[in-house]
Amino acid sequence: MTKAPQTPTQILRPIELALDLARQAQSLGEVPVGAVIVGPDGSTLASAHNRVILDHDPTAHAEILAIRQAAGNLGNERLLGCDLYVTLEPCAMCAGAISFARLRRVYFAAYDPKGGAVDHGPRYFGQPTCHHAPDVYGGIAEGDAAILLRDFFATRR
Amino acid sequence: MTKAPQTPTQILRPIELALDLARQAQSLGEVPVGAVIVGPDGSTLASAHNRVILDHDPTAHAEILAIRQAAGNLGNERLLGCDLYVTLEPCAMCAGAISFARLRRVYFAAYDPKGGAVDHGPRYFGQPTCHHAPDVYGGIAEGDAAILLRDFFATRR
Repeated sequence: MTKAPQTPTQILRPIELALDLARQAQSLGEVPVGAVIVGPDGSTLASAHNRVILDHDPTAHAEILAIRQAAGNLGNERLLGCDLYVTLEPCAMCAGAISFARLRRVYFAAYDPKGGAVDHGPRYFGQPTCHHAPDVYGGIAEGDAAILLRDFFATRR
Repeated sequence: MTKAPQTPTQILRPIELALDLARQAQSLGEVPVGAVIVGPDGSTLASAHNRVILDHDPTAHAEILAIRQAAGNLGNERLLGCDLYVTLEPCAMCAGAISFARLRRVYFAAYDPKGGAVDHGPRYFGQPTCHHAPDVYGGIAEGDAAILLRDFFATRR
């Protein structure tokens, strides 16, 4: 990991938006994860939260939905120069999608030792079969995202 | 890998259908990969081919589309007792989706040393962060699928 090229404010604004989306997901009974994609000019291209249960779609993680939305809006399956902000360390499915979408940077909040695939498990971006790896910055506003997830799972046990 | 519980005919019918879908993908300029999902009663629940370029969607691999279609049709994000047939070894993104969908078995044709995540790279189903692993049978009708892929990439070089 290297120092992020954005200013703290540039990073925190989309992460705060992603946290708001995670809270919306929680209020709908979904695992509270939110994701935002920012274009090269700093504009918000896409934003989404988990919708697995709502949509009866096991692939409907926040990152997948945001990537599909951004690519659809741009009319291009490659999100060159775009950055993803997400409240949880991406899983293997989402890490694969991030790589295929050629996202430039990934900022995530809470680490996920149980299901994460960036700093845990397969560590996908370091695999020889991963053909594009973004720059990754983990632990951004980690406290807020971790509290949200902990409270969510506490109410379900 | 253990012996597949299906008869050769039960396995070859959906694999042949997946190969037909892969040929359709090729004729549309997509990477030739097809996928079919079969329900517990042997009926075809979903079938799809790669649509990454057509749909401007980096997540539109055959497996992801078939999983979304089957889950949508069943109104359930979990495809319990269902089996996936696909012409190429799944990548990390698709392996993650297969796990989340709780698919029972995966039959694939060609091995993919460059991008596969089942027998190559992250070997996702063997990771401690993978919470459901299907039974996997690789190399089914491998020759046909491999020729299709080889011819496709040969014409693009």
